[in-house]
Amino acid sequence: MEVVDVELGDRAYPIYVGAGCLGDLGSRLAETGRGKRVAVVTNSTIANLYLDDAVASLTRSGFDPAVIQIPDGEEHKNLAWLAFVYDRMIDAGVDRGGAAIALGGGVVGDLTGFAAATYLRGIDLVQVPTTLLAQIDSSIGGKTGINHPAGKNLLGAFKQPRFVLADVECLRTLPRREYVAGLAEVIKTGAILDAELFAFLEAELSGILRQERDPLVRVVRRCCRLKALVVVEDETESGYRAILNFGHTIGHAIESLTDYTTYLHGEAVAIGMVAAARVSRRLGYCDEATVRRLTTLVDRCGLPTEVPSDLGRDALALAMRTDKKALGGAIKFVCLEGIGTTRFERLSCEDIVRYV
Amino acid sequence: MEVVDVELGDRAYPIYVGAGCLGDLGSRLAETGRGKRVAVVTNSTIANLYLDDAVASLTRSGFDPAVIQIPDGEEHKNLAWLAFVYDRMIDAGVDRGGAAIALGGGVVGDLTGFAAATYLRGIDLVQVPTTLLAQIDSSIGGKTGINHPAGKNLLGAFKQPRFVLADVECLRTLPRREYVAGLAEVIKTGAILDAELFAFLEAELSGILRQERDPLVRVVRRCCRLKALVVVEDETESGYRAILNFGHTIGHAIESLTDYTTYLHGEAVAIGMVAAARVSRRLGYCDEATVRRLTTLVDRCGLPTEVPSDLGRDALALAMRTDKKALGGAIKFVCLEGIGTTRFERLSCEDIVRYV
Repeated sequence: MEVVDVELGDRAYPIYVGAGCLGDLGSRLAETGRGKRVAVVTNSTIANLYLDDAVASLTRSGFDPAVIQIPDGEEHKNLAWLAFVYDRMIDAGVDRGGAAIALGGGVVGDLTGFAAATYLRGIDLVQVPTTLLAQIDSSIGGKTGINHPAGKNLLGAFKQPRFVLADVECLRTLPRREYVAGLAEVIKTGAILDAELFAFLEAELSGILRQERDPLVRVVRRCCRLKALVVVEDETESGYRAILNFGHTIGHAIESLTDYTTYLHGEAVAIGMVAAARVSRRLGYCDEATVRRLTTLVDRCGLPTEVPSDLGRDALALAMRTDKKALGGAIKFVCLEGIGTTRFERLSCEDIVRYV
Repeated sequence: MEVVDVELGDRAYPIYVGAGCLGDLGSRLAETGRGKRVAVVTNSTIANLYLDDAVASLTRSGFDPAVIQIPDGEEHKNLAWLAFVYDRMIDAGVDRGGAAIALGGGVVGDLTGFAAATYLRGIDLVQVPTTLLAQIDSSIGGKTGINHPAGKNLLGAFKQPRFVLADVECLRTLPRREYVAGLAEVIKTGAILDAELFAFLEAELSGILRQERDPLVRVVRRCCRLKALVVVEDETESGYRAILNFGHTIGHAIESLTDYTTYLHGEAVAIGMVAAARVSRRLGYCDEATVRRLTTLVDRCGLPTEVPSDLGRDALALAMRTDKKALGGAIKFVCLEGIGTTRFERLSCEDIVRYV
């Protein structure tokens, strides 16, 4: 078991990364001194796979877990299901001494996190991410939220968990396509922050694709550490944290234009990263070799690298402009300067799509 | 114009207290460097009285305010109207550079505050309280929230405003009953924290009841300062801030048992304070003279002092136990030691009602 500390002062917390550590959930929670009554929020798919283990671990440590199950799928990350979670937590008698435990991927984590941030003006939150994307990204850093018909994550709160427990064994049951999509964010982490991690991915990709335990734990731990450093630097995304949006400006626009049905988030981000690298090169911030290394690694994962030809450039620009991060039509765009280094540039949506 | 500073580090903010200062809203907001597009959330009653002045002030300072109007009344402080406010803010194109301005009493302030805390994971909030209760209590300290069928304020967040602008002239249009109910919280502030304020109230009550400007500004300012000190001491109510619950444990139970239709909040708190003082005396923490001074001042305002005889003691105890602050049936009860001093005692609900 490896521990990564997120050094956020009075909101500091550990990320436990290991293989087969789900059974430690109860004892880790007991260390925080929480009351007996806790809520485990999960979805129907994850419930079939890991709920029994999670509940057993909690019960062994003296907790009395109430299970709250939501349907699987991003379309349920909305106000109606948030209200459902509130209702069940009230029914279950979860009080301020309790905790909400998110057992699942990003949807479960975001929704549960928002509920924990706002139930009784805030109760403790524990993240138990079961997807690669959630383990290295969404469970860390306190961003929680739900979607609105007008856009993704338009409603939410910053809520740091008490701890994160990431068991890479849970990834074995992940559909291959979802696992690979998660690798896009791993590549992103290397590309923007860590040339060494990027080189490790280039060297060990086949083992990582086969989910070999050692390189996988190493990669997850490294990504968690890097994400933690970024979060500590800028907890509420007032500046530096926007570096994590590399590939996301274009990626979000692609997801939005295809109604979130064609691409998984990581797949759209993969396209967005390659496109952002090309924009960076066209603006003279990086060389062709950098674009090529990124494109090659993305492609070796089996991830897409090209903006679909049927998406019009004007539509793409419009979709970017309605992103919640756009201010007055300009976007703080993350450009690549080389593998492991970036720069922010304020670009118009039109300029971005011109160079994609 | 008097300024009270709430010293909360990077969340510090000023409370502007004055007579006729509503017209300064725009210039005060301009000082914070907010973007042009802001939302003014208000209710139909307040809109008729003060919306034009508020909007004119904002427009004069270059802002482009979108007005969001909710119906008047505590029954609208719920998830459905929160969703309405979200929708209107999205429609109006309020972005992260904008702000939500709560123009109204506690309901508007709490709902708008929760919306501001969670819209785009948080935008700036400005409180422009127009009731006495909101000016001295609910607009200060960052507690925001909505009700749930299972209880009041069960959902919410801590969200400190950028500033509070309290214009005592707005109190002139307040129904007399509501104004007097607000005085209950003024009396509470003196009783728990400030013997001098309490004595001032005893001496100047007739002028305050007539809303004479000088004693009123002085009282509002003093209450704001005291509330600010408590909030700075304990921002998220992990301990000391619970002192403000004096009279509220029993008050909330009475409100709940009478379906929030018989008593205004302040009226229930008035009864609760007198009852809490009696409990304190029965437990030997204060003398009879203290109980008498409190009861007399409450009574002189025309506020009720007795738990209605048709409310059963068992029902009262049960209502207290379902309060969100009850932990395992015991309550951290605020006892009076004398005018201006208190002590916390962990009491069972049964013990409390026995001595009421």
